[in-house]
Amino acid sequence: MKKYNFNAGPSMLPREVIENTAKQLLDFDGHGLSLMEISHRAKYFQPVIDEAVALIKELLDIPEGYSVIFLGGGASLQFMQIPANFLIKKAGYVNTGTWAKKAMKEAKMFGEVVEVASSADKNYTYLPHNFEIPSDLDYLHITTNNTIYGTEISKEIDAPVPLIGDMSSDIMSRPVDVSKYTAIYAGAQKNMAMAGVTVIIVKDDMLGQAPRELPTMIDYRTHVDKGSMFNTPPVVPIYSLLETMRWVKAQGGVTEMDRRAHERADILYGEIDRNKLFRGTVAEEDRSLMNICFVMNDEYKELEKDFFDFATERGMVGIKGHRSVGGFRASCYNAQTIEGVNAMVQAMKDFEAQH
Amino acid sequence: MKKYNFNAGPSMLPREVIENTAKQLLDFDGHGLSLMEISHRAKYFQPVIDEAVALIKELLDIPEGYSVIFLGGGASLQFMQIPANFLIKKAGYVNTGTWAKKAMKEAKMFGEVVEVASSADKNYTYLPHNFEIPSDLDYLHITTNNTIYGTEISKEIDAPVPLIGDMSSDIMSRPVDVSKYTAIYAGAQKNMAMAGVTVIIVKDDMLGQAPRELPTMIDYRTHVDKGSMFNTPPVVPIYSLLETMRWVKAQGGVTEMDRRAHERADILYGEIDRNKLFRGTVAEEDRSLMNICFVMNDEYKELEKDFFDFATERGMVGIKGHRSVGGFRASCYNAQTIEGVNAMVQAMKDFEAQH
Repeated sequence: MKKYNFNAGPSMLPREVIENTAKQLLDFDGHGLSLMEISHRAKYFQPVIDEAVALIKELLDIPEGYSVIFLGGGASLQFMQIPANFLIKKAGYVNTGTWAKKAMKEAKMFGEVVEVASSADKNYTYLPHNFEIPSDLDYLHITTNNTIYGTEISKEIDAPVPLIGDMSSDIMSRPVDVSKYTAIYAGAQKNMAMAGVTVIIVKDDMLGQAPRELPTMIDYRTHVDKGSMFNTPPVVPIYSLLETMRWVKAQGGVTEMDRRAHERADILYGEIDRNKLFRGTVAEEDRSLMNICFVMNDEYKELEKDFFDFATERGMVGIKGHRSVGGFRASCYNAQTIEGVNAMVQAMKDFEAQH
Repeated sequence: MKKYNFNAGPSMLPREVIENTAKQLLDFDGHGLSLMEISHRAKYFQPVIDEAVALIKELLDIPEGYSVIFLGGGASLQFMQIPANFLIKKAGYVNTGTWAKKAMKEAKMFGEVVEVASSADKNYTYLPHNFEIPSDLDYLHITTNNTIYGTEISKEIDAPVPLIGDMSSDIMSRPVDVSKYTAIYAGAQKNMAMAGVTVIIVKDDMLGQAPRELPTMIDYRTHVDKGSMFNTPPVVPIYSLLETMRWVKAQGGVTEMDRRAHERADILYGEIDRNKLFRGTVAEEDRSLMNICFVMNDEYKELEKDFFDFATERGMVGIKGHRSVGGFRASCYNAQTIEGVNAMVQAMKDFEAQH
């Protein structure tokens, strides 16, 4: 049976990315060695890093003066690495849920942290808008997409201070004005690669200003200076990132990714709003295009498990909502297809017809 | 042409590990999804982590009271994470070269660091022996194998304090008395896996004693408590680790790995010592079984590039010595074959015959 992958992350990747990566595991570019066993210092690996960096810069239209680096440890490590590098006195955080809270917790070890806005009062089912942003912040941290609650900050925030964005779950899904940011970071295992690599885009002239001694691996300058090769990088995850960036470019770049995301989301939210069994969990204007969260309407609550089984039998994978929201979550990252979305919608329609 | 992989790391892996991993990229265990796009929370990924941990515990005969965790970031991140977690007042380091020096540098940010012994006086071409170890150290840190200089501490050090071992380049190559250690860590990209995962073996009751607030991701307890699943782990690198551990077990475990390492090393060092063109760079009793370093004898120095080309034409890969030693380095990790070693030896013999 054909599977439709709605995993929240690690998540669906384009089939050609998967097949090309698998092929390189057997013989990397005809060199007679597996991608798993080549040296990162081999002259034929440097072009992998170089092309991956160049494609990210091209696809996101990154201005001069920014570096792109690849690290291990996940976005969770960045929750401490960002303030370690950039928090001088005071930073602002927009609290849109779990990931923002985790980021704030780590930042408090490095300086004053102001919660500039929060949607905790309604369990993060909306995004704060029109909040005051103090002008004396070193940076304002935002989580552009919340995978758990299904909200997405898709319009650039106008702030009197530089932004730092955790874009783990919507990077490469739409154009971004990188010039507004001191740093953008993203665990790559949604729109960019297999799990195991984190992408950080940093503004070079903001580095080295924080008033503390940093461990070598925590200091972004280490990795900027050495082109992500200070120590052994995660070779295979980076290769899969390169393949994914090639695919994004070949498909038409982030503008096309954005168009597809809207197309998928329109179909799915359309059905959620139409179908008598279901309702969305997020304020309409704040809905994520990446993680589409919905629950059974109260009068059909007892059908939740039945629908889960019904959809699973039709090939849907990873549709269970996060335990803090319940219900369902259909994650629609770049690689998600209209076919997959239609299969989900058909399951919702057919289930409705039975009830 | 058949290639013989002598890379120092990432390095040669058993062909069946490579093929099995490539196969799972296409379809993970018949679930209809790639290993690259499954959720780490999927019920079929947990057994991967569980079996990998169980095999490491079995293969290294790890006593009760130790945890095995998988992190990203490489051993270089451990250089700071180890003292952050375990350095209370004073730690001792044995300086056997580059890696030990890097580890010491990071530790100095967390407390007093004593260089207990050093072989810097002879460019790390030997190992310090019979040195005094203060009994008031929180731990004594050793790098069991130095990839660059080709030395290896293969006999357990008798110390009045607990050991911490960077075993990045010789873990799983021989039996170890884990009970002597507070922690063992290893970037996995030599004997255990593709690059992208670091293995840490920690003694549980030594955790949480250091007098400092730790960022969540730096605190080993985070990862011990969550079974390496606090955040998204490097799924594919961990899978390749599992495959490698299955292979080590099927081959006869670390005792058999040790026997093979001696067999390979005897052949290679035997030829180095016999061949008029070459000489080893390390004191005989301190020679590494993993990284076999040698240079041209002084009177043949000008043949270095010729021999490099000669061996490369016969399929040798990654045999250039590190720039701080020069000459050649044949890395012989667990997956290295007698066939590979013999090919190298034959190249040395044939080149000698020409000169």
